[in-house]
Amino acid sequence: MMIYNQNLDGCQVDNKNAFKNFYPDALTTFRTAYQKGELAPLSLVEKTDDITSYQEAAERFENFDDILILGTGGSSLGGKTLYALAGQKAPRLHFMDNIDPHTFSRLFETINPKATGVLAISKSGSTVETLMQLAICLQRLDKKHFMAITEPTPNTLRKIAEDHQWTCLDHPTNVGGRYSCFSVVGLLPTLLAGLDAHAFREGARTILENHLTEESPPALQGAAMAAHHNKPLSVMLPYADQLDSFALWYRQLWAESVGKDGKGTTPIRALGTVDQHSQLQLYLDGPKDKFFTLITPQWQGRGEAVQSSLIPEFTGKTMGDLFDAELRATYETLVNHKCPTRLITVEALDERSMGALMMHFMIETIITSYFMGVNAFDQPAVEEGKRLAREYLAA
Amino acid sequence: MMIYNQNLDGCQVDNKNAFKNFYPDALTTFRTAYQKGELAPLSLVEKTDDITSYQEAAERFENFDDILILGTGGSSLGGKTLYALAGQKAPRLHFMDNIDPHTFSRLFETINPKATGVLAISKSGSTVETLMQLAICLQRLDKKHFMAITEPTPNTLRKIAEDHQWTCLDHPTNVGGRYSCFSVVGLLPTLLAGLDAHAFREGARTILENHLTEESPPALQGAAMAAHHNKPLSVMLPYADQLDSFALWYRQLWAESVGKDGKGTTPIRALGTVDQHSQLQLYLDGPKDKFFTLITPQWQGRGEAVQSSLIPEFTGKTMGDLFDAELRATYETLVNHKCPTRLITVEALDERSMGALMMHFMIETIITSYFMGVNAFDQPAVEEGKRLAREYLAA
Repeated sequence: MMIYNQNLDGCQVDNKNAFKNFYPDALTTFRTAYQKGELAPLSLVEKTDDITSYQEAAERFENFDDILILGTGGSSLGGKTLYALAGQKAPRLHFMDNIDPHTFSRLFETINPKATGVLAISKSGSTVETLMQLAICLQRLDKKHFMAITEPTPNTLRKIAEDHQWTCLDHPTNVGGRYSCFSVVGLLPTLLAGLDAHAFREGARTILENHLTEESPPALQGAAMAAHHNKPLSVMLPYADQLDSFALWYRQLWAESVGKDGKGTTPIRALGTVDQHSQLQLYLDGPKDKFFTLITPQWQGRGEAVQSSLIPEFTGKTMGDLFDAELRATYETLVNHKCPTRLITVEALDERSMGALMMHFMIETIITSYFMGVNAFDQPAVEEGKRLAREYLAA
Repeated sequence: MMIYNQNLDGCQVDNKNAFKNFYPDALTTFRTAYQKGELAPLSLVEKTDDITSYQEAAERFENFDDILILGTGGSSLGGKTLYALAGQKAPRLHFMDNIDPHTFSRLFETINPKATGVLAISKSGSTVETLMQLAICLQRLDKKHFMAITEPTPNTLRKIAEDHQWTCLDHPTNVGGRYSCFSVVGLLPTLLAGLDAHAFREGARTILENHLTEESPPALQGAAMAAHHNKPLSVMLPYADQLDSFALWYRQLWAESVGKDGKGTTPIRALGTVDQHSQLQLYLDGPKDKFFTLITPQWQGRGEAVQSSLIPEFTGKTMGDLFDAELRATYETLVNHKCPTRLITVEALDERSMGALMMHFMIETIITSYFMGVNAFDQPAVEEGKRLAREYLAA
């Protein structure tokens, strides 16, 4: 079996011919682009020899209690998604993706400057939020405990790193932030967290190969199904706390890749079972404007069993049994209410299955961009705000 | 000045007559309902004498290191919103709103059972997720360290509480979960966190009185403006990490109150500046289907100033200066792209301003339900899933 299983029965399309308008060229376009080397973020997973150098960098920080990862958007969300899998107690990773002075002042109250490392990540090396974080951290922490990841260009972050003689790793020039999880940007935090970067890439590689060779691979089917339903909202509803950051990662990937030229659909980050008590009423009984993706590991039997008979229906059951029952109930209720719903299941959440899921959604996003006729790799609209922010800061 | 200021200029409606169809009855309906005692969640803020008994309950837990708040949806989000303001180091509050066995097993590794208290909250006393959490916590923690909040009816949670002789406080019968923040459900966590429950209610009371007496109070204007634009998506975009949970609270309030009978709009929880690097591209250049609400405290000058000249444009500036510049840049860019955008500012985030904001959005939600012709206080669609989950668990 595949690392994950995608069940599209709940999307309620009997006639598979409904898809044929989406199919003819998309897979060929995708494969041709890949073979030409135009999909660098995906090709990264074929590599294994670069991991040694990231491991060496990670070892410089291994004795710290706390590591601050400075960076926002794609510089943060891939690593954060993986960190949800971490079991180690130290070093603790803090993904600092905002510039809230209150948050930083609280942080400085709780960490020991002597036992804290800082990793600053910015592709361009000129992200103002990341540079501001860096400037403040330099005033508070040991100037020798820093590393950086940025493009090999003469940018501000690289200049600061070189002036301080920090380790500075290269952000690949042909890989954008939101597609950078399989590069050093995702892998170094993975290694700092004590996780298996090889397994992460291996899971992704398996799925990539599947999409380069199979007749109708799952990301194509998923993209075509969503395009067929043509709903303006795409709800990502995982049943696992460890996938909460994954949903945030997906939300950026999807929004920035397909949201342009007046096109695109809006991703919604949700979480089961929590949102059954918050959003499900709207999902079931409000406007029918949503396509649903449920993702879950196998929960049945997970957790300790209830021994007492205080609540008779729970006796002998585990929390995982209830989680599983809730997932199935929500799935069935959505389908009964004619909401197009797909269900993705993985055996367990680990580096390999996370790599597989992230590769799946990167490919699905790219294929969707072909359907929509947009460029999945740019984000032209945000430049105006960046310019204005610098003006206002200077004023 | 009011506790907050609502600026609707960015909504770009010159002709205020555009609103007149929304106005005539809504305010009268609201005030009549209030005077008749039909809006119990709001009337709560007129009380002060009940806080003493909640304070006594809170003192039972004051020496614990950790307090687990078991509960989901409205039993969790109000308290969590307030807890974001807490400055104390202990007791730490953990809002356990899911039934992920992995999360619970990690939690039990980090807390000391002898120094941990548990507060279980369920209005009906039969919420299966909360009861499952309770059953597992009873196996792991000291059975004397529990309290409960539930309706004064013979329900499962109350029976367990009475059997164990726990303190059991009454959840008001005429106040639904998502409207319960000004009741014991919001106030007890507030007090456990060492915060000022009087100031929280006082801020809310000031805003309530304003809406009972002023000619065109802000929640009416906000509701009418959103209704006039009639966008299917409502983006809540605060610029403050401490408002991240507030946006989650709003998301439930809005979705469950107006999402029914095929009507309603979908709330989106966002966060500045983080989502400038994730969602802004879509907001500016994707479909024009969103109404934006930006909320911010005064950031200018907040945080420590950058002393070095490493990055010349930052010298002498604070992180708060940049936060403020980013907020203004995003606001202006949204407006330039013809996105209807309102800006709410508060002087500072504290119990009083949080109470004011929560009251504002409760009133705005109720008034919107009048416009839409839906019942703001029920959630009929979720019963089917609850029944199915019990069936599947038993199978």
